[in-house]
This record gives sequence, structure tokens and C-alpha cells, in this order.
Amino acid sequence: MTHPRRGHAGRTGRRGGESGTRDAILSAARHRFGEHGYDGATIRAIAADAGVDAALVYHFFGSKERLFASVMRLPIIPGDVVEAALAAGARDSTRSPGEHLVLAMLTAWDQAEMRSTFLGLLRSALTSEQAAVMLRQFVADTILGRVALAARSAGADVSGDARYRASLVGSQVVGLVLARYVLQVEPLATASPAELAAAVGPTLDRYLTGDFG
Amino acid sequence: MTHPRRGHAGRTGRRGGESGTRDAILSAARHRFGEHGYDGATIRAIAADAGVDAALVYHFFGSKERLFASVMRLPIIPGDVVEAALAAGARDSTRSPGEHLVLAMLTAWDQAEMRSTFLGLLRSALTSEQAAVMLRQFVADTILGRVALAARSAGADVSGDARYRASLVGSQVVGLVLARYVLQVEPLATASPAELAAAVGPTLDRYLTGDFG
Repeated sequence: MTHPRRGHAGRTGRRGGESGTRDAILSAARHRFGEHGYDGATIRAIAADAGVDAALVYHFFGSKERLFASVMRLPIIPGDVVEAALAAGARDSTRSPGEHLVLAMLTAWDQAEMRSTFLGLLRSALTSEQAAVMLRQFVADTILGRVALAARSAGADVSGDARYRASLVGSQVVGLVLARYVLQVEPLATASPAELAAAVGPTLDRYLTGDFG
Repeated sequence: MTHPRRGHAGRTGRRGGESGTRDAILSAARHRFGEHGYDGATIRAIAADAGVDAALVYHFFGSKERLFASVMRLPIIPGDVVEAALAAGARDSTRSPGEHLVLAMLTAWDQAEMRSTFLGLLRSALTSEQAAVMLRQFVADTILGRVALAARSAGADVSGDARYRASLVGSQVVGLVLARYVLQVEPLATASPAELAAAVGPTLDRYLTGDFG
């Protein structure tokens, strides 16, 4: 199941052109991510499966994170949104990083396309152990990694601590999403983004840099 | 689809005895909860479907909440656990209501039987709109209702506010469960209950009675 799929690339070659190559890479990546998880799938192996050079994968997709986002048809790069929100919070004296994070997250989820894609991911993680591993690794590497960096640069003492803080942030964010968009619990489902930022933002700030334990 | 299922009760009668009647009630209740949601299913209608008197349903199951818990094979009554934790927190000067709530919740989920039952419920809520409605109504009526009462008796000002507070508590609890038991994000998945109570308990306390918005 892990043998190079050169036949595939051959077919692609006959279809010809850039979009055929892109499709071959996406198909190889979908297979590798599904089979080996996010961490286990290397760009080198994906390129080999697609019968192309690894440099071409980077040329088309930029990074493993972006390749994964393309495979999953994510309309945004979650890590970029998180990074931008944390940076905005660090500069902004009226809204904390936690508030920015809540607002950015709600803005993304309030788009129908985004919501259905993420719900699909969440559903598959709840029904398949393999999908749960893939999603967990992607979230840990690309989202929690950036949150942990922010916690550390804001003064969280050790690196293990920063990851614990990031996973606490993740737990509140995923719970808010589930309660608001999936279970649609009132009055949380219809509360305004500003209200929720005021209520939940300080929770995230405390998880990022507060004192506990 | 909503006609009384008297034929069912007849079969039960032939099977005879108390357990046959219990089974007929459970089967009628499963059907009604699925079809009409938790709120829309009345004990009166369930009793009629099962061909028994409503008093007998109360005699066997005590309340709609307990009947639902039996239908879903919940090994505990979630509302009872929440109520006990909040009461313990109100009496205890060393641990807050939020900390008690986190500890009680982790104790329940750390039991394998409980975990698989709740995961099944969560899965069905993510894949079926009907199941999501049923679960949301049950959680709102029996769990968030009790949390809202606790918030109000601890000084939350108005009743709408108390329900908002309860839904915020719910969002953090369900997110913690998802991150720890389903996605198994580290180091949250292996953190001790005491660590998590110290980190997450104050979040719940703030949602219950803190200042925000």
C-alpha cells in the first residue's frame, strides 16, 4: 500500500500539464495523510508516489501545512488565522490576544463553506481513529504550535508548559465551536461575536499566560 | 408514525410481567425521543404508545430525565452528578464549584463504559440533526438548567444571563472532553484530574459568577 504510484503519475502525464501534476500530488497526499497521519506523511514520499520531484510539491503548495489544507479543501489556513490574531492582540491595547482569537475563530466559522468543511473534519475524527490521529497531529503542529510559541514569547516558563497552555486554549475553542455551531445551545448560538469575545477571550488569555497549578 | 403502538403493549403482555412492561415503555420512549426530541416527547404520549398508564412510567423510571438516561443506557444521571458537584463546591472552602465540576466530570469520563456511551451520543449528534436536537434539549433541560440555578443562587443577576453562563460552562466542559478523550491532544490527554481542576475550574467559576460583557 506504500509502493510508489508511478502508474498514477504516468496517467497524469498523459492528461498533461500543470493541473494534471497538481491533481497527482493531491491524490498522493490524500493517500499518504490518510495512511500515515499528518506527521508520518513526508513531502518526499508524497512526491515519490506522484512521480515528481519534492521541489515541485513545494513549488505548487509551499509547505506540508498548505498541502494538507488543499487536500482537505480548507478555504483558509487555520494556523495563519491564529498567528494573525495573536499578533494583532499583542499590538492592540483595547483587545487582548484571547479576544482577537475568539473573534477570528467566529469570523471563520460564520462562513457557511468553512463551517461545513470543518464539521466534516470533526465528524470524521469522531467516527474514525485514523482521521482523529490525522486531525490531532495537524492541529498540534500547525495551530497549537503557534499558540504555544505565543504563550512562550508572552512569558510561559517552559516548553512543555507552553504546549499544555495551548491545548487548554484548544479545548475551549473546540468546545465553543461545538456548542455554538453543532449543538446550537442557546443563548450561546445566537450571542454576538463581541459578547463571546468578552466572555471567552479572558479564558484564553489566562490559559496563555495566567497563573495556575 | 405517531399512532399508539398498542400492538406492542399486547406483545409485552404476552411476554408478561414487569420486565416486559419496562421494555415496552423503553421502546416507546426511544421512538418518541427520536421522533419528537427530548422536549416534545411527553410521558403521557410515551405511556399511551406503550399501552400503560402514565403513573406506571413514573413508578418504573421516576422522571423523564431518568427515563431518557435508561433509554440511552447512561450509567449515571449527568444532572445528578452536576448538582452534587455544585453543592459540594458551595460547602467546600478548599475547592471551588468549578473545580468540583471538573473533577466530577473527569471521574465520570474516566470510566470506559461511560466514555463509550457518551461518545456514541456525541457522534450521533454530529452526524444527525435529529440526534443533535435531542441531545441539546436533554443537556439544556437537565444539565444547563441545574448549572443556571447554581449561577442564579450564587448571584447571577437575571435568568437569561444565568442560561448564558450555563452554556459557557457547557462549552468548556464539552471541549475539554473532546480534546482529552476523542482527539487525545497531549499533554492535556494525560494531565491529572487535579491539574485540570486547577487550570479549568477557575474558568467555570468565572462563567458561573464572574464579571464579563
